[in-house]
Amino acid sequence: MQQFHHHGYVSTNPRVKPAAGVGLEERPADPPTELDVLIVGSGPAGMLMFSQLAEFGDVRTAMIERREGRLVLGHADGVQQRSVEMFQAFGFADEVIAEAYRITETSFWKPDPANPDHIYRAARTPDDPLGISEFPHLIINQARILDYLRERAGTYSPARLSPYYGWEFLDLEVVDGEEYPVHARLRRVGDGGEERLVRTKYLFGADGAHSRVRRAIGAQHLGKAQLHAWGVMDVLVNTDFPDIRNKAIIQSRHGSILHIPREGGYLARIYVDLGAQSAEDDHAVRQTPIDEIIRRANAILTPYSLDVREVAWWSVYEVGHRVTDRFDDVPTDEVGTRDPHVFIAGDACHTHSAKAGQGMNVSMQDAFNLGWKLGHVLTGRAPASLLATYTAERQQIAQDLIDFDSRWSSMMVKEEAEESIEDFYVRTAEFPAGFMTQYRPSILTWGDSDQEAARGIPLGKRFKSVEVGRRSDANPKQLGHLHEADGRWRLYVFADEAPAGAPDSALARWAMWMSENPVSPFRAYRRQGEDLDALIDAKVIYQQHHHDIDPNAVPELFKPVTGGLELVNLEKIFGITDDVDIFAEREIDRGGVVVAVRPDMYVAAIVPLSRPSEIADFFAGIYRRD
Amino acid sequence: MQQFHHHGYVSTNPRVKPAAGVGLEERPADPPTELDVLIVGSGPAGMLMFSQLAEFGDVRTAMIERREGRLVLGHADGVQQRSVEMFQAFGFADEVIAEAYRITETSFWKPDPANPDHIYRAARTPDDPLGISEFPHLIINQARILDYLRERAGTYSPARLSPYYGWEFLDLEVVDGEEYPVHARLRRVGDGGEERLVRTKYLFGADGAHSRVRRAIGAQHLGKAQLHAWGVMDVLVNTDFPDIRNKAIIQSRHGSILHIPREGGYLARIYVDLGAQSAEDDHAVRQTPIDEIIRRANAILTPYSLDVREVAWWSVYEVGHRVTDRFDDVPTDEVGTRDPHVFIAGDACHTHSAKAGQGMNVSMQDAFNLGWKLGHVLTGRAPASLLATYTAERQQIAQDLIDFDSRWSSMMVKEEAEESIEDFYVRTAEFPAGFMTQYRPSILTWGDSDQEAARGIPLGKRFKSVEVGRRSDANPKQLGHLHEADGRWRLYVFADEAPAGAPDSALARWAMWMSENPVSPFRAYRRQGEDLDALIDAKVIYQQHHHDIDPNAVPELFKPVTGGLELVNLEKIFGITDDVDIFAEREIDRGGVVVAVRPDMYVAAIVPLSRPSEIADFFAGIYRRD
Ligand SMILES: Cc1cc2nc3c(=O)[nH]c(=O)nc-3n(C[C@H](O)[C@H](O)[C@H](O)COP(=O)(O)OP(=O)(O)OC[C@H]3O[C@@H](n4cnc5c(N)ncnc54)[C@H](O)[C@@H]3O)c2cc1C
Ligand SMILES: Cc1cc2nc3c(=O)[nH]c(=O)nc-3n(C[C@H](O)[C@H](O)[C@H](O)COP(=O)(O)OP(=O)(O)OC[C@H]3O[C@@H](n4cnc5c(N)ncnc54)[C@H](O)[C@@H]3O)c2cc1C
Repeated sequence: MQQFHHHGYVSTNPRVKPAAGVGLEERPADPPTELDVLIVGSGPAGMLMFSQLAEFGDVRTAMIERREGRLVLGHADGVQQRSVEMFQAFGFADEVIAEAYRITETSFWKPDPANPDHIYRAARTPDDPLGISEFPHLIINQARILDYLRERAGTYSPARLSPYYGWEFLDLEVVDGEEYPVHARLRRVGDGGEERLVRTKYLFGADGAHSRVRRAIGAQHLGKAQLHAWGVMDVLVNTDFPDIRNKAIIQSRHGSILHIPREGGYLARIYVDLGAQSAEDDHAVRQTPIDEIIRRANAILTPYSLDVREVAWWSVYEVGHRVTDRFDDVPTDEVGTRDPHVFIAGDACHTHSAKAGQGMNVSMQDAFNLGWKLGHVLTGRAPASLLATYTAERQQIAQDLIDFDSRWSSMMVKEEAEESIEDFYVRTAEFPAGFMTQYRPSILTWGDSDQEAARGIPLGKRFKSVEVGRRSDANPKQLGHLHEADGRWRLYVFADEAPAGAPDSALARWAMWMSENPVSPFRAYRRQGEDLDALIDAKVIYQQHHHDIDPNAVPELFKPVTGGLELVNLEKIFGITDDVDIFAEREIDRGGVVVAVRPDMYVAAIVPLSRPSEIADFFAGIYRRD
Repeated sequence: MQQFHHHGYVSTNPRVKPAAGVGLEERPADPPTELDVLIVGSGPAGMLMFSQLAEFGDVRTAMIERREGRLVLGHADGVQQRSVEMFQAFGFADEVIAEAYRITETSFWKPDPANPDHIYRAARTPDDPLGISEFPHLIINQARILDYLRERAGTYSPARLSPYYGWEFLDLEVVDGEEYPVHARLRRVGDGGEERLVRTKYLFGADGAHSRVRRAIGAQHLGKAQLHAWGVMDVLVNTDFPDIRNKAIIQSRHGSILHIPREGGYLARIYVDLGAQSAEDDHAVRQTPIDEIIRRANAILTPYSLDVREVAWWSVYEVGHRVTDRFDDVPTDEVGTRDPHVFIAGDACHTHSAKAGQGMNVSMQDAFNLGWKLGHVLTGRAPASLLATYTAERQQIAQDLIDFDSRWSSMMVKEEAEESIEDFYVRTAEFPAGFMTQYRPSILTWGDSDQEAARGIPLGKRFKSVEVGRRSDANPKQLGHLHEADGRWRLYVFADEAPAGAPDSALARWAMWMSENPVSPFRAYRRQGEDLDALIDAKVIYQQHHHDIDPNAVPELFKPVTGGLELVNLEKIFGITDDVDIFAEREIDRGGVVVAVRPDMYVAAIVPLSRPSEIADFFAGIYRRD
């Protein structure tokens, strides 16, 4: 977790950061009429944005939600490894892991060749055969993920935000040139339906598949008209099906099931295939009763049977494959000529089947991509043009998602295929785990990066953690897990071979340049009274064992003075450990390399120590001096 | 964490158990005048007892504390591995680990032979060189540990208890033969000092070194009169001392320091030796000012220096080595003739130096030993005679502690010794880690146990966890970590070589005996409407890989039906994993063995599968039929 006591001794829960920022004392009972950011919808996309912006105490944020209170049941439940990695940065991964069901493998059931009316277990595949991540793949109800995010925004983050439930977005107008250019009309749900006009600098539309914000900005939701229907139920069952507590893909003569065990030891989510529906059917399939879904499930599971003791939630879930052409209010032919003010994310931009367990995950990643950018623009660090990178980066990801999901969905219902479903599953595992995202060169992904200098750290992908040894306390630490979702950049400065304090090392020269050159990002964007690491948290990793580093000989850049007591932060100095040499593990050039990692954890630049000015150039493309 | 949803779907935080038990709705503003247990003092011993009893919804518990509110600062901060293991059972180890400082090694500083006025680092030793535990050794303020325990008692446990602050214990009288034999006089602190008489079945005196409860029961606090004084300060410092964030034992020409880094990255606790004090000095040393302590610390650290930026807390801590002759109100010569009603624990029974970091740990273990016993006696399961085992078991531990600590304290201040301090430290590591406790044969430690049948599971010591594979969900699990502090026994039933379902296996015969024989503990002590595992949670571990177990062929004893929905619990069936064979790891007889583990995690009996009646005999020594 984060460091604490640097503003003086804290006796109570140190996870609770000091309250900071605007309008804390008097949270108005109704949404304020002048805002920096208005978030519409409190699903995974909206709630993630809410939590991220809550880290920026100076940004005036409000979130409205049509529902009268928290989500209680249903919706998504698959949490991919990338999401757990992100939760780690938000500080609640351990809690989610303890509470969730953990998928370690998938079993594949098919018609028994000896008796095709019965199913048999044809294969078992490990869930992460390639060791893609040190984080687990989890199943837990969306409602609980939203709880954790809301708790973080409301209790732990400086801004102490809480949602406005029972407010509905109606429409909006963007009035160019005004300080608060987005005029949004809201309505109170129930109670006479009072309307309210909110003027905001930015509006984040996370209002789901039937998004009104999408309609208001005229974005096109493109894709196949054909819908595929599934009956989905959260049930407490007794059964003789031996894999009731394993993830199972079941293909039988009577149809197919995607079976997902759930948290707590007793609950299961069962998706029963109800087949492709034509758009002309007028959603007749939605009338399917729960008894029929249970009956079908029993037929598919023959010779096993389900004794359903309680139906906690069920739904008929019908979905096509669609992507929106753009994720903001700037028409495609005007990109680059004006800055966006309205954004959409999550199901508002991309809808697809539930089968690859992507729904809530990709939606959160959308918001994580945009959150820190809004934070930096609104605090005056970055020009508004930075916001155009959101559509540019995420629209492609959405397209990839739809393509993958279409492929996967059709495989699940086909009995014969050129590739077995279990082979496809293993071969493509990186995608559903959330780690295939790789951003292309742009102002945020430094095209002049020297990928050869750190072959094991792919540019544009999320930074994958490795163990290092912290000098200060001789603790082995996952370097990546020290990255908190606090809106700051990370700079991993991998030293050359010289030990700390050696005369004229590449590391010392680099640090000197960064400390002294006026164009250094540590000088150019630092504000009066701000800690040295307020925008960029620089850590040094020596090639020596952590025991062999003399902290007194490490450049001051890596020992920033912090807080009013002017305490020296000693936790940014690392070496290798007895077990792991990060330089070998990630093929890092022994001449020394700097890796810049974005606030949302993606690798943005890889530059040898010998070229300090390039790091300055890179940041100059994003930030501006006051 | 615990299982959930078995009483129907839970949408909110599943850590919060359903509220249950007596007097929940109307918590009186002042302590009730009739109680099952009155706890005096809310230090580590009192608070641990409070949390444990909160698991028993039917037991009427109250805790009083003289202070007006929660502890804020100071006191102990060393959390040994055994305590973290126990916190795991209480459900908050992960949180404490994330928040605390973790000790991985200790450095030893001595006068530099080349320049004896300066110190130099003479050695570094790993903190757990023998791999005693999978849990870390932590440093975190006592106040935070108390917060976690209180939160558990108040928010998560069925009884939903909260402390009565600002109430002081005055004295007590035990009136034999009454239903509420302990009459305790309390006084409100401040506000006119209103007195109140509370009648209680049991009283737990956890009121610290100057215990009034101890005095009231006439127990003798025996030990050396000589006191050793230390100046102790929690400080935020800048320094060039390279091991400021490492645990360090510093012996210099100018005195010695025990240096303990603290949670959060900046804080340190520094114990400065103020020397032995004679009792005649009338505690003159307590007048030592903080400036003098800082001055001495600087002298000891020469050539390094400390720049103290804030003193969060400081004290002169003077302590002797004392143990109380008995831990309850039964005079030594009447043991066995009457049952105890008043108990003392923690500092009330044993005081010693802070140097081995034992204070809060041993105190909590005292309470953990007694907590479940009180719970089982008060819910009518066990006869009151069970309570005599508390003094019998814990008095010896306290004596061992004092002996160890005397040895350790004198080594710390001696410059020359027959054994170097670092060698002694490593050689005796199991003791301060909290794992040397081994209870002797008694009704709770089955003397007829077959230690040879499980050589790696020492009888009378705490059960050390090993990885097993859970059949239901193919998850590797630490068997010991599934033990919650819920007051239940664990029975680990290690199967013979036959797979599940094989005819006439030793395991199947054992399970049949337990299911059918009226003297089986699963039948004899089970109450109407109670789940099969309400008192004893039995888990089976097969010798096969978890993949190769057919759950439908496992005896019903290991698939208990639970809750109103009568759901089958499938999470008690285990096999070995790809990586670990628990049978090999713990030298378990392949003919099959049963290991009984007490609610406070100690190994109580080891009996081959072939002798089911011995398990019945063992429990018959402790419990009674309704
Ligand atoms: C009934 C249902 C079942 C689902 N089942 C599954 C599943 O089984 N597996 C799976 O992977 N995914 C499932 N999904 C999809 C998954 O939940 C989504 O992919 C994910 O929630 C997308 O997150 P989001 O934040 O973009 O949108 P959503 O979670 O849809 O959140 C949108 C929010 O905006 C609110 N809102 C909508 N319009 C307005 C308005 N005008 N004003 C104010 N608030 C508004 C809504 O009430 C909602 O809270 C399901 C979705 C639904 C609706
Ligand atoms: C000032 C101080 C500094 C210490 N420093 C260290 C240290 O640096 N390192 C270390 O390892 N250990 C230290 N200890 C010891 C360590 O805190 C104890 O070993 C540990 O707290 C013992 O736990 P306990 O529950 O038995 O008693 P305590 O923690 O002492 O708790 C007793 C509680 O009972 C309350 N109480 C007392 N009398 C009454 C009464 N008549 N009525 C109601 N309530 C009452 C007290 O207010 C207190 O809250 C220190 C103790 C003290 C007091």
